[in-house]
Amino acid sequence: MTVKPTLLVSKYFDSNIKGYVDKTKGTESFLEEIKQIYGLEKILKFDLGENPEGPSPTLIDELKKFIRNLSLISEYPDSSYLRLREELAKFYGVKLENITVGTGSNELIERISRLWIEQGTKVIFPIPSFYRIEDAILRFGGVPVYIQLKDEENYQWTENTTNELIRTAKETKSKLIWLVTPNNPAGGIIPLEEIQKIIEKNKDCIIIVDEAFGEYIDSYRKPYSAINLIKSGIGNILVTRTFSKIYGLAGLRLGYCVGSNELIKLLERIRMEFAVNAVAEKLAIAALRDQEYIEKIRKKTSQRRKLLENSLDKIEGIKYYPSQTHIMLIKHKSKNLYNYLLKEGILVATMEISGLEGKNYIRITIRNEEENNILINAIKKFFGI
Amino acid sequence: MTVKPTLLVSKYFDSNIKGYVDKTKGTESFLEEIKQIYGLEKILKFDLGENPEGPSPTLIDELKKFIRNLSLISEYPDSSYLRLREELAKFYGVKLENITVGTGSNELIERISRLWIEQGTKVIFPIPSFYRIEDAILRFGGVPVYIQLKDEENYQWTENTTNELIRTAKETKSKLIWLVTPNNPAGGIIPLEEIQKIIEKNKDCIIIVDEAFGEYIDSYRKPYSAINLIKSGIGNILVTRTFSKIYGLAGLRLGYCVGSNELIKLLERIRMEFAVNAVAEKLAIAALRDQEYIEKIRKKTSQRRKLLENSLDKIEGIKYYPSQTHIMLIKHKSKNLYNYLLKEGILVATMEISGLEGKNYIRITIRNEEENNILINAIKKFFGI
Repeated sequence: MTVKPTLLVSKYFDSNIKGYVDKTKGTESFLEEIKQIYGLEKILKFDLGENPEGPSPTLIDELKKFIRNLSLISEYPDSSYLRLREELAKFYGVKLENITVGTGSNELIERISRLWIEQGTKVIFPIPSFYRIEDAILRFGGVPVYIQLKDEENYQWTENTTNELIRTAKETKSKLIWLVTPNNPAGGIIPLEEIQKIIEKNKDCIIIVDEAFGEYIDSYRKPYSAINLIKSGIGNILVTRTFSKIYGLAGLRLGYCVGSNELIKLLERIRMEFAVNAVAEKLAIAALRDQEYIEKIRKKTSQRRKLLENSLDKIEGIKYYPSQTHIMLIKHKSKNLYNYLLKEGILVATMEISGLEGKNYIRITIRNEEENNILINAIKKFFGI
Repeated sequence: MTVKPTLLVSKYFDSNIKGYVDKTKGTESFLEEIKQIYGLEKILKFDLGENPEGPSPTLIDELKKFIRNLSLISEYPDSSYLRLREELAKFYGVKLENITVGTGSNELIERISRLWIEQGTKVIFPIPSFYRIEDAILRFGGVPVYIQLKDEENYQWTENTTNELIRTAKETKSKLIWLVTPNNPAGGIIPLEEIQKIIEKNKDCIIIVDEAFGEYIDSYRKPYSAINLIKSGIGNILVTRTFSKIYGLAGLRLGYCVGSNELIKLLERIRMEFAVNAVAEKLAIAALRDQEYIEKIRKKTSQRRKLLENSLDKIEGIKYYPSQTHIMLIKHKSKNLYNYLLKEGILVATMEISGLEGKNYIRITIRNEEENNILINAIKKFFGI
C-alpha cells in the first residue's frame, strides 16, 4: 500500500517555493565526508559565529549541581520560564510582560514571521544581511523589499541608507522593517538615532531589530541596544537577542525577544509550550549574572580583531570590512578560496546571499590567536605569500 | 508613541480563536502561589507524567564528559541530528529518511498540523484524549471530528470504535486521523490490528499515531508499535514518540516522528534549523542504548500500578480506569478532590477536556511507592476514611 500522491500536496509541497533549505544533510555528515576526501584529521570551524572560549566557567558549578540532582533534565521546564524572564527583566530594566523566550532567536524570527507575514506582505530588508531572516520572510509568503548597502561604503549604515529606507517603506507600503545590528555578515552597526528616525517615520510598521551580536560592540557597557527605545515607550519595535553568541550557549538553544506588552502578548500566544529546555534556562541565568566574563570576551575579541586586521592588511587581493563584532566579511579575488581553505581543514561560511554581488566573499568568525593564525597562514599560502 | 491597533490585527489576534492557552503564568509561579496560600513547604507533582526515577544513571557519565569539554553546549548542534537518527534507525530497523526529530513530540504535532491542516480540514480525533493535539487542530483552523470512547467500556478501544471511526471518516471526508496509544488520559491501547483496519479503509487519509507512552505497555519487549506498520511498507502513517516519558528526559525536549520517506521529507522541509539542543541529542543516544533500564522502569511501574489499584479498590466513591501506562484516570464523586489534594501539597491534572462528561475526573502519574502512598492517604482522608 502506498500513499496517493494527491495526499502529499500540502501547501508546503511546491517545489517552486522559496526559502527551504535541505536539512537532511547536516554539518556532521558534511564534515565527515570532507575529512575522508582530503584525509584530514580535524576541521577548524570558522563558519557559525560561536564563542571560541565557550561559556563562562561559572556555569560548570551549575552543571555539577544538576548532575547531583537530575530533576532538571527529567522534569518538564516551567512553561512560563519565569526565572529567566525575571532575570532578563532586571538586566534590561523592563517588565516581565516585555519578554518572550524561544529556542534561539531563530525561533523568534519564525514566530514573528508567522504572526505578521502573509501572502504578499512587504518587508523592508537591508542587504547583505542574515540570510535566515530572508528565508523566513519568503517561507511565509512575504516579499522582501531590499535596501542595498554599498560595497564602496564598506556595507556600513549611513544617513543615506536611512533616507532610502524611509522613502522605500512609504512607496511600497511595507508592513515590517527588519534590521540587523551589528549586521551579519559585515559587522557594521546601525546607530540608535537612525533606528529612532526610522521608527518616527513608520508608525504603521513593526520594526524588528536583531541584535544577536549586540554584546560584542565597543559601546556595550552603556549598553547600546534598541531595548532602550522600548523602555522609552515605543510600542512598535521588537528586539531579538540570543545566548548563542557571546554567552557561548549555542548548543542549548535559547533566544529572547523584548518588545511592548501588546506585541509580546501575541508572540506568547503562539508560543509552543515547553519548547525551550530546562538546562538552557538554568545556565542562561548563571551566564547572565557573570557580566565580567562577557566584558572579558568582548575586549579579547576586539584585540584579536585588530591582530587579524593587521595580518589581513598585508595580504594583497583581499579586502575586509570594518566589523564591531566577532564575525568578519572578506572579499577576495578568486572564487576558490572557500574550497582551498576546506582542503586545508578550515571551514568558513560561503556568502552566496542577496546583496553580495559575485560570489567572492567568505565570512569568518574571530577565534583564538592560534586558530586565527592558522587561518591567516592558509590564506597567505593560497595567495602564494 | 503607541502601536496602532490595526497593526495588531494579525490572523492570530482574534479573541474568538480557539485553542490558545495562556502561557504567561507558568507552573512555577502557580506553585509558588499555592505554597504561600496554604503554607506548604513542597508540592508533589502528579500532574505531568514524568518518570519519577529520572533517566538512566548511565547518563551521568555522559553529563560528566561534557562538563570536561563544554563544546557540546557552546557549539551549534548538527543540523541534521545524524547520530541520533542513526541510532533510532538502528533501534527500529528503519532508514534514516524515515525519521525526523523535534523539541518534544509536541513540536511534531505542531509541524504535522501546520503541513496538513488548513481552514476546515476535518480531523478524526477519538476522545477523551491528549488535549494538546485537539488544541493544535483548532489553532490551525481544523475541525476535530470526535469519536466518543465510552465510560461504560472504561474508555477502552473496541472493534465498535474502529467501525464507528471508519464510518465517520468516510461520511465526513476527513483528511487526517489522529490516534493516541496508549491513550492519554485513560491509558488504554488501540490494538495494532485495529490500526491496520483503519489504514486499509482510509487510504486517502494520513493516520497519525501518538505513542508517547509506548514504552510502558506490557508487550513492549516485542516491541509493540505502529512503527512496525511503516516497516511493512505502509506509506500514510506517522508515529510520534518522545524521550520525555519513560526515558526521563522531559527537561531536555526531544521527540521524534517515524514515517514513510515522502511524509518525513515534508516534515523535514518545514523543520526549523537547530531547534533541538545538542545536549538532548547526546543524552538521548545514551538513554536509547540502555534498554535494560527502560525494561526495569516498565516492570517497576507495572508493579506500582497494581499496588495503587489495590489501594484505590478499597476506596468507595472512586473509579479508576485500566491503564497500560504510568498515568491513570480517576473518576470521583466530588468536584473538590483536585482542590483538596492541592491544599495537601499534591498537584494532579484536572481533566476538563473534550469527551469527559462532568468534571469529576483527575489524572495522576504513577510515582514511587512512598509518593503514591501519600496520594492514597490524602484521597482516603478526603473521603473520611
